[in-house]
Amino acid sequence: MSESIDFYFDFSSPYGYLAAERIDGIAERHGRTVAWRPFLLGAVFQKIGGSPLVDQPMKGPYSRHDMLRSARLHGIAFSVPDNFPVNSIAACRAFYWLAESDAGAAHDLALALYRGYFTGNRDLSRPETVVEAAQALGVDGDALVAALQDQAVKDRLRVENDQALDRGVFGSPTVFVGDEMFWGHDRLEQIDRWLETGGW
Amino acid sequence: MSESIDFYFDFSSPYGYLAAERIDGIAERHGRTVAWRPFLLGAVFQKIGGSPLVDQPMKGPYSRHDMLRSARLHGIAFSVPDNFPVNSIAACRAFYWLAESDAGAAHDLALALYRGYFTGNRDLSRPETVVEAAQALGVDGDALVAALQDQAVKDRLRVENDQALDRGVFGSPTVFVGDEMFWGHDRLEQIDRWLETGGW
Repeated sequence: MSESIDFYFDFSSPYGYLAAERIDGIAERHGRTVAWRPFLLGAVFQKIGGSPLVDQPMKGPYSRHDMLRSARLHGIAFSVPDNFPVNSIAACRAFYWLAESDAGAAHDLALALYRGYFTGNRDLSRPETVVEAAQALGVDGDALVAALQDQAVKDRLRVENDQALDRGVFGSPTVFVGDEMFWGHDRLEQIDRWLETGGW
Repeated sequence: MSESIDFYFDFSSPYGYLAAERIDGIAERHGRTVAWRPFLLGAVFQKIGGSPLVDQPMKGPYSRHDMLRSARLHGIAFSVPDNFPVNSIAACRAFYWLAESDAGAAHDLALALYRGYFTGNRDLSRPETVVEAAQALGVDGDALVAALQDQAVKDRLRVENDQALDRGVFGSPTVFVGDEMFWGHDRLEQIDRWLETGGW
């Protein structure tokens, strides 16, 4: 049995979005599938300090230029949303709630949310945005609205976040191939090679 | 006339070292040369805060793993020195002093210092290490010892550092192709493509 491929991302992360548009294709070339695992980067900042990349002096202005340049290079539609960065707690809760019954639908919702945010300027911080995107995929909107306030769903996200931190995740995107950790959209080429060769 | 290629690096930066082993070859494939420009990352930390990568929680342990993995991938000899990270002020002063009379020799000294530090565990923070490496390249050791305390040399390094910061350099390595800035060893493939295509 192949080792799992786990894709950790924050919904407000541009490089996470770029990776989301590419990771499945890379895995497929090697006959593999990917487990998507959204988390809240804010939980990392609470634990070890830090701040959103684009808010950092010097690095922030550069990164805004770099993410656009990287998106163009890979032919991925991308624009910086008006409300950015944001807390994506509703998106994360919706994902894990949906994943309980349908992992494929949760994956599709994640990609739709990413695209809505980074190509359509949909405000990802609003629960309404998340519910609308889910409804467009055939999800019961009323059930989702209730789920977003369900303590069990809140607890599930907290557990997922804690597990990500325990595993060493500190940035978005982070990909594990088995126990091998790769941080950053820049590591997708190495991941591709790792899957091909089994490591070096 | 082609735009200049400026390679900014801190002598204590592992990713700067990996880039140093590759940047000239990339430029040569496009008939270009590279201006090497060491700077002190500590000056960035003084200006905007920050700390050495390997000292940061979570990110530090990962980066130690990642730099070894990236070095192996590119077939570059690399080991983490015992004294790491260090202040490389003597190395920087020696570089710019030597560059006044012989840019090629300064380049060769920089590469020798990087290799001595990251493959031979030579303590780059010691002026003696820098002088010995320069002497091995035929440089007058006594003249260099004097230069390391020369106010004009100190001022030159300060000016170089200020110019790097003014240009937006906040990390090592950073490469400019003309005015286009690329941060990180991970961007060498994009630089290669930028030189080939003139941008995208």
